[in-house]
Amino acid sequence: MTTLPERESLTVDLNADLGEGFGVWRLGPDEDMMVFITSANVACGLHAGDPGTMRRTVRMARERGVVVGAHPGYPDLAGFGRRPMNMPPGELIDILLYQIGALQAVARAEGTAVRYVKVHGALYNQAAQEPEAAWAVAEALRQTGGDLPLVGPPASAMADAAARAGLRFVAEGFADRTYEDDGRLTPRSRPGAVLTDPEAVAARVVSLVRDRAVLSRDGSRVPLAVETVCLHGDTPGALRLARAVRQALEEAGVRVASFA
Amino acid sequence: MTTLPERESLTVDLNADLGEGFGVWRLGPDEDMMVFITSANVACGLHAGDPGTMRRTVRMARERGVVVGAHPGYPDLAGFGRRPMNMPPGELIDILLYQIGALQAVARAEGTAVRYVKVHGALYNQAAQEPEAAWAVAEALRQTGGDLPLVGPPASAMADAAARAGLRFVAEGFADRTYEDDGRLTPRSRPGAVLTDPEAVAARVVSLVRDRAVLSRDGSRVPLAVETVCLHGDTPGALRLARAVRQALEEAGVRVASFA
Amino acid sequence: MTTLPERESLTVDLNADLGEGFGVWRLGPDEDMMVFITSANVACGLHAGDPGTMRRTVRMARERGVVVGAHPGYPDLAGFGRRPMNMPPGELIDILLYQIGALQAVARAEGTAVRYVKVHGALYNQAAQEPEAAWAVAEALRQTGGDLPLVGPPASAMADAAARAGLRFVAEGFADRTYEDDGRLTPRSRPGAVLTDPEAVAARVVSLVRDRAVLSRDGSRVPLAVETVCLHGDTPGALRLARAVRQALEEAGVRVASFA
Amino acid sequence: MTTLPERESLTVDLNADLGEGFGVWRLGPDEDMMVFITSANVACGLHAGDPGTMRRTVRMARERGVVVGAHPGYPDLAGFGRRPMNMPPGELIDILLYQIGALQAVARAEGTAVRYVKVHGALYNQAAQEPEAAWAVAEALRQTGGDLPLVGPPASAMADAAARAGLRFVAEGFADRTYEDDGRLTPRSRPGAVLTDPEAVAARVVSLVRDRAVLSRDGSRVPLAVETVCLHGDTPGALRLARAVRQALEEAGVRVASFA
Repeated sequence: MTTLPERESLTVDLNADLGEGFGVWRLGPDEDMMVFITSANVACGLHAGDPGTMRRTVRMARERGVVVGAHPGYPDLAGFGRRPMNMPPGELIDILLYQIGALQAVARAEGTAVRYVKVHGALYNQAAQEPEAAWAVAEALRQTGGDLPLVGPPASAMADAAARAGLRFVAEGFADRTYEDDGRLTPRSRPGAVLTDPEAVAARVVSLVRDRAVLSRDGSRVPLAVETVCLHGDTPGALRLARAVRQALEEAGVRVASFA
Repeated sequence: MTTLPERESLTVDLNADLGEGFGVWRLGPDEDMMVFITSANVACGLHAGDPGTMRRTVRMARERGVVVGAHPGYPDLAGFGRRPMNMPPGELIDILLYQIGALQAVARAEGTAVRYVKVHGALYNQAAQEPEAAWAVAEALRQTGGDLPLVGPPASAMADAAARAGLRFVAEGFADRTYEDDGRLTPRSRPGAVLTDPEAVAARVVSLVRDRAVLSRDGSRVPLAVETVCLHGDTPGALRLARAVRQALEEAGVRVASFA
Repeated sequence: MTTLPERESLTVDLNADLGEGFGVWRLGPDEDMMVFITSANVACGLHAGDPGTMRRTVRMARERGVVVGAHPGYPDLAGFGRRPMNMPPGELIDILLYQIGALQAVARAEGTAVRYVKVHGALYNQAAQEPEAAWAVAEALRQTGGDLPLVGPPASAMADAAARAGLRFVAEGFADRTYEDDGRLTPRSRPGAVLTDPEAVAARVVSLVRDRAVLSRDGSRVPLAVETVCLHGDTPGALRLARAVRQALEEAGVRVASFA
Repeated sequence: MTTLPERESLTVDLNADLGEGFGVWRLGPDEDMMVFITSANVACGLHAGDPGTMRRTVRMARERGVVVGAHPGYPDLAGFGRRPMNMPPGELIDILLYQIGALQAVARAEGTAVRYVKVHGALYNQAAQEPEAAWAVAEALRQTGGDLPLVGPPASAMADAAARAGLRFVAEGFADRTYEDDGRLTPRSRPGAVLTDPEAVAARVVSLVRDRAVLSRDGSRVPLAVETVCLHGDTPGALRLARAVRQALEEAGVRVASFA
């Protein structure tokens, strides 16, 4: 009896939101983050990411063997897609198709392809909880016709909608956030909701992958099965945290690889 | 000897710029124009045409058997893409890829496809004359990888660039504009540059197709071989003019059909 | 006993939302509406109304003796300011100051001035009901420092907030909408919520001004004291309706004049 | 004979472009720059600077005794106002009024005022050379009616237009740029056009103020009388450079103070 076979089966993807600048503006050390992640969620122009930024980001990802995903959001540059916009499902589908298609053309021009979709900001939160928004997201993916997996929180409205639409769903955990007993993220407004110590975050991610569970803020064991872990690219200390997570996973014998 | 075989070979496409509204705003009687044209140049969101408008326009085209083309322009809603923007070729390629890809996804969702590209407004004029802009347009099409033909003025920088890039080029004439002796359009600023009488315009289009030439503003015969004729959809009297042209072509035995 | 003194005291303002185009796009017959109204609510660039459109609209108003008001909305061109945007009060204040100031400069350049404020679309509805949004609107007016009156629905959160901020509040009724027993507008989604018959609308406005009450959708008498009545400028039949209202008011001896 | 009186008369303003972020995006260390400058050119929303950013920037300036100027540009977020836009003078006037007015309202809400105008980017370059654009800029200031001085390059089309419009013109030099023999800036594309050594730049600014001249790139003495010197806030090393300039001026006995 060895632990080898078990270890071999342990794999996780590391994703980050990149290309979130616009025009002259930059957000986060995209190029450096590429070293640690396996999937790049690329902004598609409506909440961030003009065509030139999209192309540079896709090129960097391709050059480093990082898989490209579409990261579409609400059409709200000034609010960075973080304001809920109360859009009917039909409109939501159309803005998602628009953004995914735009990135697909950019990716094709760079000799690569969009391999998954993860929606951004307020839309992510709404589609996690509201069946109608979740349906619209899944339906948009179905209509793109490319068998693109959808990334979202486990046991969410998005997970349900993806299942119903016959889409592959990729459950996502957050490296630097605490969870409540019910498996939901602690709201950012709560003190302690965001973790910043690289060692603590790294250890947490390793145990999340190994045990398929996290300790909740209250210390209970919360089952949490995820295929990908999100690293934030735009917080202070993002790079140190990403390095610590990547290193800890590799030292623990976890294979870090794209789910796509 | 009959004229039948000759007549049978006469075919022309009629195109119009459609879907040029944005949000609540509309521009021109899109639905009614669909009756007369065979190719719809659909705005792609940066100078006009939000995702919802794009989808409605594509759907109308599909339902009426009208071929869908991408009609990308400068990122300038306030100026409707009519202001030259002095963009380096690399950026130009990226904004074109972005727009074409976005429309491709919308078209795919509607069970159809983008079949050609015609650039809009100031970009059309620049790419007609400036080799660098023309190169960028052709290069963007090459990078989309879909063998999309490029629509533009005959004997233009765009025609040259398309030839060099190995793209099919579709020469376009204008129904309601006069030409100069050198085959160029009379600038709009000149009195008489825009024709408004439906019968006169219709007769002009018929002779353009039949004789592969027009009479210039000065009365000279100017050779002008075109595969498609542009009908403006947003001018007063646009519908009457479109109807007259379509009817005159059919009465003259010219087949009106997409070039794609 | 004569009715004259009573009649003389009856005055009402007629307002309409104008300048709601953007770039090449137009919305409604602004110039013709100017004949019937006494106050023009001018869009300020974020949901509609680019600087050129603002200027043309202000000039038309000035030339016809129509008073100019600012009509600021959410920063959402694609949604025309009709999507609630969930903006914190501080941001709301800043976008309102921005828009009011922009129109003030345009008005000053045209030799006139902004004389009141009425917020637009989703923001109007939110500020009518939510104390926090209403506070932000009133606070923005206070911070502009120009003693500008605020137009809004009677007995609303806006009315309360204006009172608390020491602002003049101008209660507004809607010509073409039915009211519920509690004095609120019937939601547009309800059948019959929007009235389209010019004679019926005109009679309704006259009795609203004369009796300071309307008959609710259920036939009850609902007290409703308003200083201004909104005419919609962008619906089909808008001009016929505006003409009928204006004419009926004048025939009934009501003075139609700006409240400012 | 002492140098004192002469020294006492030596005064210069130091200005920088600030508030050039948008939404979540930041550009340059605004707060730190405030320590060294006496005039803040605040972006007004069309090329950069949303209402919230404008307000924060104005507040920082007020708190530190820095004078606020409007820094309006072309309506082009994606291009940061650096792309010439070929706008007719009438439209130019309107977008300038719009932006100046918006900032005036924000400044008023912060208990301060806009005290001058300096146009941004491509518009600055065009108005420096093209009489028509320069006229539009001066005319916009005239129409704002506030006797605002215009900042621009000495001996430029803007200087002429300001004189003709009866505006105060404030000549500006650049701390970190070399000049040609004719008094124009060396184009950025030329090697060595941008200076980065803090000591060299500081010495250059001192001699510019003291001698009312600079040494051109070719070593000739070029007369250059300026009232304000622009420090770039968004280049690497901007703060060190700003500190060096400010310190060198003070050590040389030059009074650093707003021109307004």
